[in-house]
Amino acid sequence: MEIFDAVDVIQTKRDHGVLSDAQIDWVIDAYTRGTVAEEQMSALLMAIFLNGLTRAELNRWTAAMIASGERLDYSGLACPTADKHSTGGVGDKITLPLTPLVASFGVGVPQLSGRGLGHTGGTLDKLEAIPGWRAGLTNGQMYDQMQQVGAVICQAGQGLAPADRKLYALRDVTATVACIPLIASSIMSKKIAEGTGALVLDVKCGSGAFMTDLSRARELAETMVAIGQDHGVTTTALITGMSTPLGLTAGNALEVGEALEVLAGGGPPDVVELTLALARQMLDGAASRIEQNGVPGAGVAAGSAEAGRRAGELRQADPAQALLNGQAMDTWRRLIQVQGGDPAAPLPQARHTEQLVASADGYLTSLDALQVGVAAWRLGAGRARKEDQVQPGAGVVLHAKPGDAVRQGQPLLTLHTDVPARFERAKLALDGAWTIGASRPDPQPVVIDTIGT
Amino acid sequence: MEIFDAVDVIQTKRDHGVLSDAQIDWVIDAYTRGTVAEEQMSALLMAIFLNGLTRAELNRWTAAMIASGERLDYSGLACPTADKHSTGGVGDKITLPLTPLVASFGVGVPQLSGRGLGHTGGTLDKLEAIPGWRAGLTNGQMYDQMQQVGAVICQAGQGLAPADRKLYALRDVTATVACIPLIASSIMSKKIAEGTGALVLDVKCGSGAFMTDLSRARELAETMVAIGQDHGVTTTALITGMSTPLGLTAGNALEVGEALEVLAGGGPPDVVELTLALARQMLDGAASRIEQNGVPGAGVAAGSAEAGRRAGELRQADPAQALLNGQAMDTWRRLIQVQGGDPAAPLPQARHTEQLVASADGYLTSLDALQVGVAAWRLGAGRARKEDQVQPGAGVVLHAKPGDAVRQGQPLLTLHTDVPARFERAKLALDGAWTIGASRPDPQPVVIDTIGT
Repeated sequence: MEIFDAVDVIQTKRDHGVLSDAQIDWVIDAYTRGTVAEEQMSALLMAIFLNGLTRAELNRWTAAMIASGERLDYSGLACPTADKHSTGGVGDKITLPLTPLVASFGVGVPQLSGRGLGHTGGTLDKLEAIPGWRAGLTNGQMYDQMQQVGAVICQAGQGLAPADRKLYALRDVTATVACIPLIASSIMSKKIAEGTGALVLDVKCGSGAFMTDLSRARELAETMVAIGQDHGVTTTALITGMSTPLGLTAGNALEVGEALEVLAGGGPPDVVELTLALARQMLDGAASRIEQNGVPGAGVAAGSAEAGRRAGELRQADPAQALLNGQAMDTWRRLIQVQGGDPAAPLPQARHTEQLVASADGYLTSLDALQVGVAAWRLGAGRARKEDQVQPGAGVVLHAKPGDAVRQGQPLLTLHTDVPARFERAKLALDGAWTIGASRPDPQPVVIDTIGT
Repeated sequence: MEIFDAVDVIQTKRDHGVLSDAQIDWVIDAYTRGTVAEEQMSALLMAIFLNGLTRAELNRWTAAMIASGERLDYSGLACPTADKHSTGGVGDKITLPLTPLVASFGVGVPQLSGRGLGHTGGTLDKLEAIPGWRAGLTNGQMYDQMQQVGAVICQAGQGLAPADRKLYALRDVTATVACIPLIASSIMSKKIAEGTGALVLDVKCGSGAFMTDLSRARELAETMVAIGQDHGVTTTALITGMSTPLGLTAGNALEVGEALEVLAGGGPPDVVELTLALARQMLDGAASRIEQNGVPGAGVAAGSAEAGRRAGELRQADPAQALLNGQAMDTWRRLIQVQGGDPAAPLPQARHTEQLVASADGYLTSLDALQVGVAAWRLGAGRARKEDQVQPGAGVVLHAKPGDAVRQGQPLLTLHTDVPARFERAKLALDGAWTIGASRPDPQPVVIDTIGT
């Protein structure tokens, strides 16, 4: 590999220049190995924050991050693969019903997830509310489980994109987090290294999301879709609303319970709608993969009659039916059991609850996602530092959503915690979190836009 | 002191905001003490590089750097004080004749200097070519010598602006050197902490200078003059040419020899002209100080008849005469002797020389300062790393300057070194360093502009 001077690389971006492929490869590799110092990378990150990266630079930057570690390969499986990534929101338990739903149609889902930090929960924290369930699998165990069950939800190993872990920690202390190219390359390097063939991105937009502004959310979605496509991953994105919590629960065991309702054919309409919309994208993405690449692990060639038949089946697949007829629930049970969980065990419940009620008659006109997320966090559902423990039963249950009619004294929220002292801090977080008005507000769409199809 | 989060401070500047006084005081203090990490300061420096500082921010930033260490005070002396700072050029030995010249008129000159790095020489390296001369003095020794001789040229102590030392080292590895607010605050924090009453800045412009562009040189000069004035130091600046070397020598002992010629009433016209122009600024600056502040250490009140008389004397002073009549040379001898040097000792000479000659008849139309500087450095006059030793006798002697008529075969340059192997590398540096043409080029001014008077 060609050797550069870090100062020259920083200077190029500082002066609005374009970094060469060799400069990008070198700086990411040298930073991962510790040859480029933290203070040099932070100066480069700030220059990127303020001066941007071209599409070609960003692709190379992402490729260099992927090359910093191992890249999983599921091309030997006898099925196509598809995965989903969400930028994170309050009450976002969609991975739980979505993964078994898509896998139940014979599409492998290699879902590598994280834990929550701050007001948005993590998928692993939610699943760990299920007695016995384990988040940690080796790469070999993941591969075996993909063959056996067709899906896995587990913790990303340390071997994937180690450059991203160093960069993420650095960005956190140097005010370089909120930068679209750096966010996009961080997410996409991990998802591409994870080895999925198709990918759908759920880019949240609203008060409870990282992106509060629609134009920024769209820019992030377009940037990530471009990276995915340029790296040979069939990628689309949905931009979805996050001004109010998704569904009626925020908190680990509470959200598992809601996911089970969806898998049983019920559940809140917004959670069902988003689950089906994302499933549609994943099934169509998998179909496109088959049309373009065949299924090498099953001996199905691209362009063959069998490839056409399999792709057509996925395009015809009816995920709504699979929620109603128990097909998705069957896959859920296998998925939980194979990772040590007991799908029939009762879920943990918080020891204390407290209700908040409506102060007037009318319509609930807003219920702020961020404030509900912070309240759930303060009740014990989330963590402030990585090493904190979460309470599986803690969180918030909603009894009404914006648009619902409410009457004075009717319960709006129930707070759940093991530690009653936390109620006061949660209620402070909820101060002014909802509004009640005389007329019914316009309904807010769940899916705001679709990118890349 | 109010406590801030470094991320908030970085974010403010990243988002084009204005840092509060309290934020600036905190971040400089916390960085000096190690509470703000190097990678956080480098992100802030890059944000400042790209988004700038307002005049008020820059003043506060400079004040915080001064406050990070000790500040010398010469207000108890029975004389006004004035100093000069040059941004550095090739053959710039002006401090050597200028300091005793101005001091010979009863103006104290507390000149704190540095060593050279790269192609520009350092005043301390030049004076160390004089047998016995010592650069290191304590603050107490400096004060005594200011009382006894009226001038000092010595190494800046570690106690002045320690924030600047840390920042300078960080800027060097993070491509944040060439930034006018950061250059200006670095220079001015040290000069203001040094305790001078008046200050003249020699801002070099041209191929051999840090600023190659006149508009950038003017911006730097105006920025530094504003900082000095806002901190109560009577400050002016000259913008001077540095496209060709100053005088006829570049190298330590060689430049001392040329300085002695000037102090003896001779020397190259450009060196004499610049010495007199800077002396005029310093004498006028000292006169303004007396008019505004009196001379507290001599019991002379501002506005008194004695203050008017003393200021008038300085304004009438004739520095050209003081070079011709030996007055400046007398002060030079005392200044060298009191720091251990022998002004009568022969200067070191390099063991080997080699001449480069003109290849045609005509006029010398250019002779590049940067290339001569790099050649002198490679011959041994400068250092590549701080810990390197310099050769006192090494360097380049010019036998012609742009505008002079030359004949084919006539010597243009003599290279001096103790290590003959260095000739080849020096000659490579000089490839294409001069041009000979048929017509005499227009003379280039020594002083291009004056700022702040």
